[in-house]
Order: sequence, then structure tokens, then C-alpha cells
Amino acid sequence: MALPLFYCPGTLYGILHLPEEEAHHARSVLRLSPGARIGLLDGKGTVAEAVISTMDKRQLQVAITSTSLRPRERKARIHLAVGLTKQMERFEWMLEKSTEIGVDRITPLITDRTERTRLRKDRLERILVGAMKQSQRAWLPVLDEMMTINDLVDQGIPVQRLFGWCEGRPSALATCYRPGEDAVLLIGPEGDFTPEEATMLTTHGFGAVSLGKARLRTETAAISSCAYMNLAQQV
Amino acid sequence: MALPLFYCPGTLYGILHLPEEEAHHARSVLRLSPGARIGLLDGKGTVAEAVISTMDKRQLQVAITSTSLRPRERKARIHLAVGLTKQMERFEWMLEKSTEIGVDRITPLITDRTERTRLRKDRLERILVGAMKQSQRAWLPVLDEMMTINDLVDQGIPVQRLFGWCEGRPSALATCYRPGEDAVLLIGPEGDFTPEEATMLTTHGFGAVSLGKARLRTETAAISSCAYMNLAQQV
Repeated sequence: MALPLFYCPGTLYGILHLPEEEAHHARSVLRLSPGARIGLLDGKGTVAEAVISTMDKRQLQVAITSTSLRPRERKARIHLAVGLTKQMERFEWMLEKSTEIGVDRITPLITDRTERTRLRKDRLERILVGAMKQSQRAWLPVLDEMMTINDLVDQGIPVQRLFGWCEGRPSALATCYRPGEDAVLLIGPEGDFTPEEATMLTTHGFGAVSLGKARLRTETAAISSCAYMNLAQQV
Repeated sequence: MALPLFYCPGTLYGILHLPEEEAHHARSVLRLSPGARIGLLDGKGTVAEAVISTMDKRQLQVAITSTSLRPRERKARIHLAVGLTKQMERFEWMLEKSTEIGVDRITPLITDRTERTRLRKDRLERILVGAMKQSQRAWLPVLDEMMTINDLVDQGIPVQRLFGWCEGRPSALATCYRPGEDAVLLIGPEGDFTPEEATMLTTHGFGAVSLGKARLRTETAAISSCAYMNLAQQV
């Protein structure tokens, strides 16, 4: 699809208004006019074609001309839960790249060694939307509120549970990961999980996995394993 | 190793001077003094411990106290040849991240759809050195001069030759890649390789591989497949 894409959560049917930020982008950045054809994504698989019917400084109305539903890309879902990094820029970069590579759900994780206590979720959502549009995907990853490991375990996560771990000699991700099954993978923040957290994770059915011998930054470990899980599913 | 690391190409033996840029970093950023212990990397597997013996504004002399040789990390080498992107920032990001993830050689590729004709190789080398130190690796990836596909083929590249390709229905990277053998993987620039280039690559023994259904940016495709090849080797 070569049409410019806009994110429009909700039911894509009939006549509707673009969200304010998307309307601004259409009007002031792309300088589209009434009659222009655009694509709409609801972030849940629906892709619609539409025509801009009317627009003014406050709102932009479109008429849907066709819709189609795209299936999920992956056989099995990928859920990343990643320790919040000190520099938010690094976490944001991880969100963008994992969305481009392919991820279904992302949990910002509070751990013993996490220093951050607040999150601008609206800003992070915008990054996900931008990456979804850029990579022409129809599914927006679910972004959780920040939470602790215990909260996460209480949420009904997949049976396949893994966490990146540098201590000891855990098996390689490629040995442990079963590409046909939904999985949740935890990556620690700077300084990694504490030994107590690792023990607690093991108790909750998480298997420790190695991502190699080199010391990877949190965000690099997250996208590296995300890329692996995506490509391993394609066999 | 918790010592601050410095890149020092050449033989790590006896008394030597740090390269100017590294000396500046030791003196003005880390504010080290004579007597401080540091680590040195030659980028070819040698890791040395040293003590700063003398320093002034122009030079910084160190005495090597011990050296060790670290083996290569991978069973089989990974060579990425990546089409130069319009925005150099994106190519630089790819260099940094692929070095962190693990790569042995990188070729900046000139293709039919490459617009860039010049490269600041010294700047790119510094990015590689920074990423090597950050990820505490002992091996610096080889960075080639920019070259065409024909030049690359003339250089004696591995028998396992792959290129990312979106047209048709190529097999998945995970199906084609043989983790036990050296490999070269080509990734096209914005707009991908031309059909003529794809035909020419096939003639030279390159197999087309798919990196998934989504449209990936050049730099995301490069690091994603680099991550896959590294992790697949760890089985």
C-alpha cells in the first residue's frame, strides 16, 4: 500500500474524524487536501482506505471506501518485558525497533535495579504508532503500564517464560526457545536482575537463557532476542 | 574486566603511547592520573592490562603489565554488506548495533539505488571502536571501503552467500542460513536491490532470503539478521 497511513483507533466504518494529532500530520506535514486518498489503521488488524471529505483547522473528516482485515503476522506471540533503562531515549529506541522487527506486547519492567519511577505513556504510545506506520504493519503492540515482576506474573502470561541472564552458564536462547508457542522474555535493566530476582523468576517457571558472551546493553539485548524469535518462527 | 578500556592498535608490549584520541579521553573525560590501571584492546583479540606511567598535554605513556589473547567469539564469521542509506546517521547506528550484537566484517555497499558517493571512514571507525569497548569485545569488525557488488564478489567472500529480498517468495533466513559456516549477507539500500542486481547476485551464487513480511528499514534488516545469525550459532 503506497497511501499515507494514519492511526485511527476505534471502528473503521462510514464517516469519521481523524484523531487530532493525525489530522495535524495530514494537514500541516503532508499538506493533503479534500479528495486525497489515505490509509487508516486501527492497530488491531483492520486496514481501511478512505477519502478526505472535509477539513478545517480543527478537524479532518474522512469517508471509508473499503476495509480489510490482516491476520497476525506471527504463529506465536512475542511478549517482551524489559527493565526500564536510566536513559529513556534508550527505552524508546527499543520500543521503536522491536515494533519494526515485530512484537505483540511490551511491558516496562520495574526491578530492584530500576531507578526510574515514572513513564510518559502517551509519548511511548506515539513512538509505537510511528513505528507501526513506518513498517506498514496493521497491528499495534500492546504497551502495558510499568509494573513489577510479581505484577506481571499475576497477569496471565504465556507458559513459555524466559529471562536473559549472564551469570552461570544458562542455555542459549536458540536452544530453549520454542518458536511455535507464545512466549514472554524478560530482559533486565542496567546491572541486570539481582540473584534474588533470578531465583524468584525460576520459582515462577522462567528459564534463564544466554544471549551470548558479550555484554549487551538492555535495549540491544531486547531487540536482538526479538529479532531472533521473529526469524525463528519463519521456518 | 572492570578497568576502563582503550583502543590501541599495534603490538601490545612493553612501554607505549596511547593514540591521541584515547589519551584525550583518559585525561580529560575519565581524568585518570599516573598510576591508574587501564585495559587496552588491539582489536584483534589481545587484551592487555597496563599502568599509566607518565602523561602530559601531548601524550600519555603506559606500561603493559599483562596480556592475554581472547579467541574469536563465533564458530563462523558473519560478514554484512549493507547498502548505504540516505541518512548517514542510520548507517552509523547500524554499525554501532551490529558491533554490539556481533559482526566480523562490514562492507558499505554501492548499489544502483545508492545515492551516497562519499564516506567519512575515520568517523565510522570511531563508532566501531566505541561499540567494541562498550560491549567489552576484543575483536574490532573489519570495515571495508565502500564498494560495488562486483568489487565485493572479487574480494574472496565466503561460499555461503545470501541477500535479503522482498520480491517473490524467497525462503526464510532461518531456513537457508547454515550457522556452522562463514556467511556474507547483503542488505539493499532504501528501495532495495534492483531486479537486475538480484539476477546478478543469483549468478554469483547468492541465495535470496526473506526477513519476514513487514517492510524493514535497511538498518533494521541488517541488525535483525545479524542478531539472528549470532544467536543461531549458539546452539
